[in-house]
Amino acid sequence: MAIMVPESFPMNAGEGPLSYTQNSYHQKEGLITSKAIIDEAIAERLDIKRFSTSCPFTIADFGCSTGPNTFVLVQNVIEAVEAKYKQCPSLSSHVPEFQVYFNDHVSNDFNTLYKSIPFDKKYFVAGVPGSFFGRLFPKASLNFAHSSYALQWLSMAPTELLDKESPAWNKGRITYANAPEEVFKAYSAQFAKDMTSFLNARAEEVVPGGLVALLLVGTTDDVLSHQSVFVRLFGLMGSCLMEMAELGLLSETEIDSFNMPVYNTSPKEMKGLIEENGCFSIESMDPIVHEVPDAKTCSIHLRAGMEGVLKEHFGSEIMDELFHRFTKKIEESSILSILPNELSVILKRKVAN
Amino acid sequence: MAIMVPESFPMNAGEGPLSYTQNSYHQKEGLITSKAIIDEAIAERLDIKRFSTSCPFTIADFGCSTGPNTFVLVQNVIEAVEAKYKQCPSLSSHVPEFQVYFNDHVSNDFNTLYKSIPFDKKYFVAGVPGSFFGRLFPKASLNFAHSSYALQWLSMAPTELLDKESPAWNKGRITYANAPEEVFKAYSAQFAKDMTSFLNARAEEVVPGGLVALLLVGTTDDVLSHQSVFVRLFGLMGSCLMEMAELGLLSETEIDSFNMPVYNTSPKEMKGLIEENGCFSIESMDPIVHEVPDAKTCSIHLRAGMEGVLKEHFGSEIMDELFHRFTKKIEESSILSILPNELSVILKRKVAN
Repeated sequence: MAIMVPESFPMNAGEGPLSYTQNSYHQKEGLITSKAIIDEAIAERLDIKRFSTSCPFTIADFGCSTGPNTFVLVQNVIEAVEAKYKQCPSLSSHVPEFQVYFNDHVSNDFNTLYKSIPFDKKYFVAGVPGSFFGRLFPKASLNFAHSSYALQWLSMAPTELLDKESPAWNKGRITYANAPEEVFKAYSAQFAKDMTSFLNARAEEVVPGGLVALLLVGTTDDVLSHQSVFVRLFGLMGSCLMEMAELGLLSETEIDSFNMPVYNTSPKEMKGLIEENGCFSIESMDPIVHEVPDAKTCSIHLRAGMEGVLKEHFGSEIMDELFHRFTKKIEESSILSILPNELSVILKRKVAN
Repeated sequence: MAIMVPESFPMNAGEGPLSYTQNSYHQKEGLITSKAIIDEAIAERLDIKRFSTSCPFTIADFGCSTGPNTFVLVQNVIEAVEAKYKQCPSLSSHVPEFQVYFNDHVSNDFNTLYKSIPFDKKYFVAGVPGSFFGRLFPKASLNFAHSSYALQWLSMAPTELLDKESPAWNKGRITYANAPEEVFKAYSAQFAKDMTSFLNARAEEVVPGGLVALLLVGTTDDVLSHQSVFVRLFGLMGSCLMEMAELGLLSETEIDSFNMPVYNTSPKEMKGLIEENGCFSIESMDPIVHEVPDAKTCSIHLRAGMEGVLKEHFGSEIMDELFHRFTKKIEESSILSILPNELSVILKRKVAN
């Protein structure tokens, strides 16, 4: 059997003006909102009495990027877990040591991540390079798993989008906005496959009673996925590329052969996939609505997160022009009148299964 | 109390002609020799019956650099441990999963390390950035700790070497070769302090019955430390720098304010420090003698390992000139007629203490 290596799409490295490190405060805002959800989940749902008192409490952040948000998240989780131990009469003198694992693709800039580890941290640090669609940790070794702004990335864009003979051929587009239903279905099937892989791997790694907290760009059950803000933004980016092709700055074939490996799921779809996996109970599932940023901020944020995958296909030369046009297109559109939506999901590893 | 941050001296990054990755086959040779020692230690000394069968077997390589030697070492250890489990009637069906931790300084090029992780590895990988003179892992979490070619590095050169009022002022030299006894004593005291910190931290982290395998550049009990090959080589490098100062290529003050943070210990000295720590039994202590490389190979190897620390002080401009002179100086000297010596030490974590 051929082994598929998931593609990797690292955030912009380093600490420069277009870096992910400098342009992830939208994500930070989401994490602040989800903090209350995580705090409550730890207080009410985490089964610390099941955990061995001789082992450290282990936390893994899947898709941590280069920081700094991951450090804030980890600190929050540790404080909530410590508070829970201290409030439990039988465990208050057994607050464990904390081992934190920062995971992202092999191509992530771990050097930058490590340089920004807080000096006064009270936990042990390890970085774990590799795709979270496969196993990364030993059996039953994690007490708390977290992933934010990572699971909307697919392991790859669906291959049928490139097939001229397929009804899902995605000519002249880079996403499923304004595309035939078959294109959407191909994206949705890829997401189902990837999320299933993620859940299967975590089901092995997370101990019974342990939690998985997910935050991903998504939509609500009322808004169709291809009408969500992010998918429509990629639709706009596709039209910028098409305009540039008309001006001869790139070829249409280059556009036809590229598709954004990003999908926005709905609560209903997520619920179905989690139940199919069967190893986790859904403790909560909440939509998180964001303030709308201005067009320029929105464009820079997307550049910090998405430039890597675009550059790899189209080359770095056209990036400035592309994002200049993209900012203008967002300004001229009414897209930013729609509120961007995210999905917070708390899962607990069941004891059986 | 002020917190001392150990200095870091990363090996040359990347994969270019002067990189550590391309110039560490001398170290590889040492690892092949020590393989037999480690294999035997695992077969005869590792107390696998003490280890929990529900936990993964954990291996940490302290000072792993950017590869590739660390991957060879880890593979050897895993094969020896697997063989031991399979030969033990009560454990043959409980061969554990393996979790491997690669440790080095925060400034180590982990990105390069991660890119060269073997594709077909059968263990879980984590990188652990930070100084091994402090705690890096939770209590009793390691089954096998290893460090090669790292512990001859001091956390810092002794500060009294810079003090004009001290008898240990090391004017015109960068090491303790051809230096007053006080300079040697300052180096030796720093080594004792650092090795004690290393042993104290590992005593917390390694489980009872677990092993610590160390390989470090050293000397024998017959050869004084300041007459060992490596220390004499740094002595030669010091004279190259002094010659360049005479030619006005750098100032003597720059040389006076720099000392190589490297020390070559003896078996006797190591034994004393291990016994003083008290948490480990010495299972074996063997000298490893190397083939002598030619002058050019020797110079390039030292450059790959030492250029970082030299550059930081003297600037990168003079490096080509310095190593050109250094190669010539080695050729003209009789240093390479002395066999380079290393020390292999196997420790076992005691059950009590």
